[in-house]
Amino acid sequence: MSTSSNLINNAVEQLSKFPGIGKKSALRMALYLLKKSESETLDLSAVLVKLRTEIKFCKKCYNLSDGDLCNVCTSPSKDESIVCVVKDFQDVLAIESTGQYVGHFHVLGGLISPVDGVGPNDVRVPELISRVSEGVIQEVIIALSATLEGDTTEYYIAKKMNELGVKVSTLSKGISVGGELEYADEMTLARSIRNRTNLEA
Amino acid sequence: MSTSSNLINNAVEQLSKFPGIGKKSALRMALYLLKKSESETLDLSAVLVKLRTEIKFCKKCYNLSDGDLCNVCTSPSKDESIVCVVKDFQDVLAIESTGQYVGHFHVLGGLISPVDGVGPNDVRVPELISRVSEGVIQEVIIALSATLEGDTTEYYIAKKMNELGVKVSTLSKGISVGGELEYADEMTLARSIRNRTNLEA
Repeated sequence: MSTSSNLINNAVEQLSKFPGIGKKSALRMALYLLKKSESETLDLSAVLVKLRTEIKFCKKCYNLSDGDLCNVCTSPSKDESIVCVVKDFQDVLAIESTGQYVGHFHVLGGLISPVDGVGPNDVRVPELISRVSEGVIQEVIIALSATLEGDTTEYYIAKKMNELGVKVSTLSKGISVGGELEYADEMTLARSIRNRTNLEA
Repeated sequence: MSTSSNLINNAVEQLSKFPGIGKKSALRMALYLLKKSESETLDLSAVLVKLRTEIKFCKKCYNLSDGDLCNVCTSPSKDESIVCVVKDFQDVLAIESTGQYVGHFHVLGGLISPVDGVGPNDVRVPELISRVSEGVIQEVIIALSATLEGDTTEYYIAKKMNELGVKVSTLSKGISVGGELEYADEMTLARSIRNRTNLEA
């Protein structure tokens, strides 16, 4: 879909690069800007440039951060003896939004994948090892996706953490809370039977 | 949903102002920018600002345009004796994309709506009258939505055009091409029976 205005066509082309935004949505977005005041577009543009140029990685946990240390690492209510190892920023968000986790994070920025040539040193495993070696961290919770890459990374990190003598655990795998048993896939169901939880009386 | 980074929160807030973009999509868009090179964000930002600050209304038909006259008005293959009256830029796009229309346009920029205090002089009806008075336009096709406001505007414009002595027509109303008869609403079906088309042998 091409319009009679190159200004609009260019904006549509740029906006449709966003994930999940097709040409039609991009056009709707461009026309929305035209309907609003000029300052609104300038604000949007400034905020996006500021985001892209000023965001940092937290020097401690590699979470996305406005300053040198992220809000989790600087929070006095968080327990720094517990560290949850995740793949990326979205995982930090997901876990923080549960409101159940009181520890710090360690963001790997990727998963070990021998097939793709990604080794332990290509993700932030060495940084995790040096953090744990400092002696403050007592427990490491590995919270990665239950995929081949996630499992490989988990196995590698668990081995290293055992060597360092800290407690290591992983997220429990099983059927979804609120999910129908009949719709659970076979792998998940098998794992949830194997890892069944005792109901203590 | 609020993240630990104000830079991200601000970007999410701005991006979620777009129609059809919720907080989750906006976050996905912000994180997409962070994954891409800085130049990509700068390009996007520049294109949006350029669009908003440089776009003009065509001096003849009030279509959105890069220059003083839009591509339709400057096209030598378009017949300037026919003018199609539409509400806004999207309608121009929709009609142009059919590839069936060879005339020019007149973009009203709104519809007459006495309930909302919008009169003929608040939309570009006077501009249409003065365009038609110049004598070049021989036929006016009114292509407005079949709503109360659309019908009101159509009635008013048709009356004025009749006074000026030009041919006036409106889009035919009826069941959708390819649509099932049983799913057509009663008003549309009634109108399509009243305005039935003769099948000439």
